[in-house]
Amino acid sequence: MSSQDVLIHSDDPCHPANLICTLCKQFFHNNWCTGTGGGISIKDPNTNYYYLAPSGVQKEKMTPEDLFVMDAQTLEYLRSPKLYKPSACTPLFLACYQKKDAGAIIHTHSQNAVICSLVFGDEFRIANIEQIKAIPSGKVDPVTKKPMALSFFDTLKIPIIENMAHEDELIDDLHKTFKDYPDTCAVIVRRHGIFVWGPTIDKAKIFNEAIDYLMELAIKMYQMGIPPDCAIGEEKKHLKMASP
Amino acid sequence: MSSQDVLIHSDDPCHPANLICTLCKQFFHNNWCTGTGGGISIKDPNTNYYYLAPSGVQKEKMTPEDLFVMDAQTLEYLRSPKLYKPSACTPLFLACYQKKDAGAIIHTHSQNAVICSLVFGDEFRIANIEQIKAIPSGKVDPVTKKPMALSFFDTLKIPIIENMAHEDELIDDLHKTFKDYPDTCAVIVRRHGIFVWGPTIDKAKIFNEAIDYLMELAIKMYQMGIPPDCAIGEEKKHLKMASP
Amino acid sequence: MSSQDVLIHSDDPCHPANLICTLCKQFFHNNWCTGTGGGISIKDPNTNYYYLAPSGVQKEKMTPEDLFVMDAQTLEYLRSPKLYKPSACTPLFLACYQKKDAGAIIHTHSQNAVICSLVFGDEFRIANIEQIKAIPSGKVDPVTKKPMALSFFDTLKIPIIENMAHEDELIDDLHKTFKDYPDTCAVIVRRHGIFVWGPTIDKAKIFNEAIDYLMELAIKMYQMGIPPDCAIGEEKKHLKMASP
Amino acid sequence: MSSQDVLIHSDDPCHPANLICTLCKQFFHNNWCTGTGGGISIKDPNTNYYYLAPSGVQKEKMTPEDLFVMDAQTLEYLRSPKLYKPSACTPLFLACYQKKDAGAIIHTHSQNAVICSLVFGDEFRIANIEQIKAIPSGKVDPVTKKPMALSFFDTLKIPIIENMAHEDELIDDLHKTFKDYPDTCAVIVRRHGIFVWGPTIDKAKIFNEAIDYLMELAIKMYQMGIPPDCAIGEEKKHLKMASP
Repeated sequence: MSSQDVLIHSDDPCHPANLICTLCKQFFHNNWCTGTGGGISIKDPNTNYYYLAPSGVQKEKMTPEDLFVMDAQTLEYLRSPKLYKPSACTPLFLACYQKKDAGAIIHTHSQNAVICSLVFGDEFRIANIEQIKAIPSGKVDPVTKKPMALSFFDTLKIPIIENMAHEDELIDDLHKTFKDYPDTCAVIVRRHGIFVWGPTIDKAKIFNEAIDYLMELAIKMYQMGIPPDCAIGEEKKHLKMASP
Repeated sequence: MSSQDVLIHSDDPCHPANLICTLCKQFFHNNWCTGTGGGISIKDPNTNYYYLAPSGVQKEKMTPEDLFVMDAQTLEYLRSPKLYKPSACTPLFLACYQKKDAGAIIHTHSQNAVICSLVFGDEFRIANIEQIKAIPSGKVDPVTKKPMALSFFDTLKIPIIENMAHEDELIDDLHKTFKDYPDTCAVIVRRHGIFVWGPTIDKAKIFNEAIDYLMELAIKMYQMGIPPDCAIGEEKKHLKMASP
Repeated sequence: MSSQDVLIHSDDPCHPANLICTLCKQFFHNNWCTGTGGGISIKDPNTNYYYLAPSGVQKEKMTPEDLFVMDAQTLEYLRSPKLYKPSACTPLFLACYQKKDAGAIIHTHSQNAVICSLVFGDEFRIANIEQIKAIPSGKVDPVTKKPMALSFFDTLKIPIIENMAHEDELIDDLHKTFKDYPDTCAVIVRRHGIFVWGPTIDKAKIFNEAIDYLMELAIKMYQMGIPPDCAIGEEKKHLKMASP
Repeated sequence: MSSQDVLIHSDDPCHPANLICTLCKQFFHNNWCTGTGGGISIKDPNTNYYYLAPSGVQKEKMTPEDLFVMDAQTLEYLRSPKLYKPSACTPLFLACYQKKDAGAIIHTHSQNAVICSLVFGDEFRIANIEQIKAIPSGKVDPVTKKPMALSFFDTLKIPIIENMAHEDELIDDLHKTFKDYPDTCAVIVRRHGIFVWGPTIDKAKIFNEAIDYLMELAIKMYQMGIPPDCAIGEEKKHLKMASP
């Protein structure tokens, strides 16, 4: 085995090289990354190397051999697959690692994100739904010093930026959202999809699932006439049809 | 193997420790417990121990090692996983065991339950659908002494309670529904999800599936203009668009 | 192995006892027989024995041991499972075997069938869709003597009967549809589901899939304002919103 | 093994005979080829033989033994399965091989294609969606000489032709679209489905997935009032209900 291949071969299903492939397959079946769309990057917590899914690969068929591995300090590729080019998302993933201290980033072409970006303006908002409690608030518990989640009565706000011809052109708007929404763990790209990050891949996956659930629910609420950030008890005033 | 681990290790796929994991995985793929939402508890019919899914775990990846085991008499934990905290649902599960003689409780964040809670007031109602016959009526057959199911011509009624900041705050409203709806096997929590219980995990699973089917159908009926508890033969009067 | 168990044990995945279990599992994941709803019966072409799924079983967990086997001549059970009762559908399945020369019958609680039964009157109709060509016309090719399918320009018509408190009460209306629709391979039961049969289980499965596809499509057409039996070229006149 | 069977037996999962079966199974579970609908053909890049799925087979159960193999020069069958007839799509597949230099063709009965054919006139159009970048533009990069994809700001246009009683009657309209839309990689057949081709089966699969994603999205946009080829920033003017 070459020294490059040591980086991607492991019997541990939780090794970044294996986990990226498992999750890409799972996300493909969620309709989140069909047609080679979307991608995942994980920082190995032991080596600080970045593992990156390549461009143009069928996400449900990806294997560890298809991955790029990058040194977090030098940003040089320690390993490149023979067949594929780096993903155009790579600069965006690096920005999340460097500015948000991310441990992993998930990018999907979820239709729920695209539809929300068509219906909402510059910000996706949903409030008073239990599933919001899966999303971090950005605050720290003063006693335990642990990160606190949003509460049921909070409003989740996710910024929406405009899409560009090339993904690397999104970088300025991404940095702007880091300033304007310092606590967000996600950015929706209009007519494109969503980027979600977290301190670990487990957290990023949970945040992404919870946000997709909430975007799906928001679309259903909107279609029935209920604003997704509607106050509790005000729902029936907004219903297009009378409550049964 | 430690004495604690004996509680959760079994080759029997129907052992509570194995069955909770199998069902959580199945429910994850139903979009019922993504983002660590939802949970299951089963009472072992042999030992009367309660098996409980923990808080914050990815439900499709859960293993028997992740479970809590509680003594039904002392309510002390006989086994606790190293990584996880008890689910905030635990007091609600205990109430179902103690007041409703449940053998198992299922809690999901089903979007069908959340949408029904936004459209309906204090009670979900659907009538005259074959699938209703999977739900218990609370009555006992005078001859066979066995529990009787709802009939096709009955109306299924499930109470809807308001969500709170913390799940343990739901306990008073849950107890109130036990009094007001003595025959119900389920409670919908507005903007949150649903709790379903039964005398065995097999029954609880069947009730939960049938109720989710009926909530999904009720939403479709509502969207076409038909009240889900509409009398047989009255459907066409309510259709938003003419019958084809 | 007892003489009864010989009837249900085979290494052939196409043996009726194995195929019923495989298909019930597949149909469960289609949301066609959750909550123990629905059922399948297959006539063994070698022995003419009827294989029947029992009542009340979780369809995705069914095994050959759960099946009833009935003699086609005497209508006596050659084998009964210990845990389960015969399905209430059994008299309806027998009617299809005896009057329609069926080789297999599929019964589902498909929500597409239930919704169509709420929207349509006494007959489901859809026309001019390629998938119709999977459904038999009841006519025989004068040259090849083989059964002919519907053509693209035909209208598929499926009778809808009213549901009753007990499934055996459907028998009179079922016999009536056999007379009124001598060529139909399916009957929709309002607010309940659908029965589909064919000369073999392969054919019955294909008919059921094609009909469910067509019912799903008909609902989508109806919701956009297009009558499902709309003439070719007339669609745009019916659209609720202008063609894009 | 007979000389005919050598053509279809390989341990390589990417051999055309194996890949057609794998993809048909995957497409069946996408609801793209239920009820024996749809089909796939792959040209073996080594031998130039055409591998063709037969007519009337259950697509999720197909095996290499069920396939036809045809010589690309003589158009004679090198291998025919015992049980099945050639697909009625065969002349259309041959046209794509001969006129479009296709390496593979995918035909589905996707409901998204059927619905788009009912809503749109003679052309499906969608613009300014990231997923469009998976579709070839027909242009060649002047520097790299490689095929270029559509850009985010382009409009994807797919011709829609009328369905006929028999699939071979579609051939004239198919040839006409080859002239009128020289860069298209797909043709929608009204009330029927879609044909998608590419230089390799991997490319054809990616194009088909991306187009199906875009048709699904276009239907959702249309239902909210937004023309799928709407200019960026104009969405809110078209929304049926106010932006939340």
